[in-house]
Amino acid sequence: MTKKYQIVGVGNALVDVLAHCDDSFLAEAGIDKGVMQLIDTDRAAELYGKMAAAQEVSGGSGANTIAGIAALGGRTGFMAKVRDDQLGNIFAHDIQAQGTDFATKQAPSDHPNETGRCLILVTPDGERSMNTYLGVSCELSADDLDMDMLADTDWVYLEGYLFDSPANQAAFVSAIEAAKAVGGKVALTLSDPFCVERHRDAFRVLVREYVDLLFCNEHEMQALYQTETLDAAMEIAATEVETVACTASAKGAYILNGGQKIHAPATATKVVDATGAGDLFAAGFLFGLTNGRDLMACGTMGCVAAAEAISHMGARPAMDLKELFGDNKLM
Amino acid sequence: MTKKYQIVGVGNALVDVLAHCDDSFLAEAGIDKGVMQLIDTDRAAELYGKMAAAQEVSGGSGANTIAGIAALGGRTGFMAKVRDDQLGNIFAHDIQAQGTDFATKQAPSDHPNETGRCLILVTPDGERSMNTYLGVSCELSADDLDMDMLADTDWVYLEGYLFDSPANQAAFVSAIEAAKAVGGKVALTLSDPFCVERHRDAFRVLVREYVDLLFCNEHEMQALYQTETLDAAMEIAATEVETVACTASAKGAYILNGGQKIHAPATATKVVDATGAGDLFAAGFLFGLTNGRDLMACGTMGCVAAAEAISHMGARPAMDLKELFGDNKLM
Repeated sequence: MTKKYQIVGVGNALVDVLAHCDDSFLAEAGIDKGVMQLIDTDRAAELYGKMAAAQEVSGGSGANTIAGIAALGGRTGFMAKVRDDQLGNIFAHDIQAQGTDFATKQAPSDHPNETGRCLILVTPDGERSMNTYLGVSCELSADDLDMDMLADTDWVYLEGYLFDSPANQAAFVSAIEAAKAVGGKVALTLSDPFCVERHRDAFRVLVREYVDLLFCNEHEMQALYQTETLDAAMEIAATEVETVACTASAKGAYILNGGQKIHAPATATKVVDATGAGDLFAAGFLFGLTNGRDLMACGTMGCVAAAEAISHMGARPAMDLKELFGDNKLM
Repeated sequence: MTKKYQIVGVGNALVDVLAHCDDSFLAEAGIDKGVMQLIDTDRAAELYGKMAAAQEVSGGSGANTIAGIAALGGRTGFMAKVRDDQLGNIFAHDIQAQGTDFATKQAPSDHPNETGRCLILVTPDGERSMNTYLGVSCELSADDLDMDMLADTDWVYLEGYLFDSPANQAAFVSAIEAAKAVGGKVALTLSDPFCVERHRDAFRVLVREYVDLLFCNEHEMQALYQTETLDAAMEIAATEVETVACTASAKGAYILNGGQKIHAPATATKVVDATGAGDLFAAGFLFGLTNGRDLMACGTMGCVAAAEAISHMGARPAMDLKELFGDNKLM
């Protein structure tokens, strides 16, 4: 029987606050370039006070992926924690407006932690440096999961970034168990090299025991397996997980499946803001996969969606992805 | 003696919520295309519920103008009312980050009216249809004015949109009196044809008695003087106000000054989102004027800044206006 959802995501609920800066700003503010760093409320206030005028767009890595799949016409649901505040209502509006079911109970408006946000500094080279104040997002626990949703999906998509507190980790395990119990499959994104450093042992177990499809980039993959080359990491991965989709920036993506290695070249574009490249790669790939396309087509779909994401400020698609896929003869 | 500010603005404090839609959405939702309509909280909730995923960018017509002047390096201040909430803090951050002094006391977080916002629907032709929920913005009263700022500026810039409640109107009068008392000049923008319809008599008095520089577009000018042609309206205006800068979309701008009529042609660009065209025209024009440029140069500066505003989503400049003016040999 066809399940109600093709993909249900579990991740962070963040509103991105995007502004331009030059490299000296990053250096002076002590921001590591190109990665995600977690910040507390005080640091968020300090950094925001220094940032240029910004634009706010719903974000969150897993949410971006799910929104991308929904924009392509996929049947999706999402679970993440916001507070009942203005930014929380913006997040909830945007993901539902894209066509995704989102029903995670909001924390009440007097809850001490606000809706999370990510202060994103975009340098002239298009690279993005992310400073995440998680707020209430990291309070997502197993109790917040919508078990009916998880029992009616082909895939559950887990965002590595969320895997930080014991409560989040328990939510991961519950989500995996609920999906597997009805024959669902599990996709995980490693999210970020530092995220992998923090949780390597737990991620190794997750990947080996439960994950059917692993999303990562070359740095995350090498961090996971502590190898000096991508090839060495891929060799280990091949023995542990059914399918791996590893992005490699301008080189495109490498897909590993049952001993086979497929290369999908990157789609040429001007990098305006790299935010969301990996998220939208996963969106294109999963949309292809859940619609019965072969892995080469899935990889190409991922690369085309990623190229769209990096051609403008913000991670969520700015143009009609269905039309873009049509233009590229992908649907 | 050089005054601290070249231009101090008094206007609405709004956060724009921008989304794409097609023309049938406007028709079904009962939205008048291309103009600004005021909406209440219920209508805002209903309309937002129907809108596509959006992006949030600080807006407000007068604030956009002041932010544009600040981006060009002008010395600016701004007065407008926000609540102490997430959107209010975003508005306050953005205008200060651009270099404008902004110190209007925020309404407390438990104040019943939230920070105002403008739901902007952008159709494929680039036209924008604005639905403004003013919230606390319309509560700006004479008590909120910073008299020190008004006593130390060459120009005060008044946003016609703000001229709605008796409290706002009293604030206008106080601001004008404070500026005039120290030899300052007064610029007014008519903002919108419907705004002119609502307040024609009062605007006529303001323009005749106090305004040194009037900004408007052709529709607003004809609404003000109830004439059938722009030329007829300009003839009346010429007898009532020192300088008029009237924009006319793709035809550029007409500037009237002491019997002389100057035409500044529009700068060619692709219209992505017309939001902010008039606001940024005023920014370029005022920047030129307060830096001693002749009226032809002021008009050209206005047209170049307006073209930048309509070439992307959102009203505030997306690129470095100083650089853009440099490229156009304007500074």
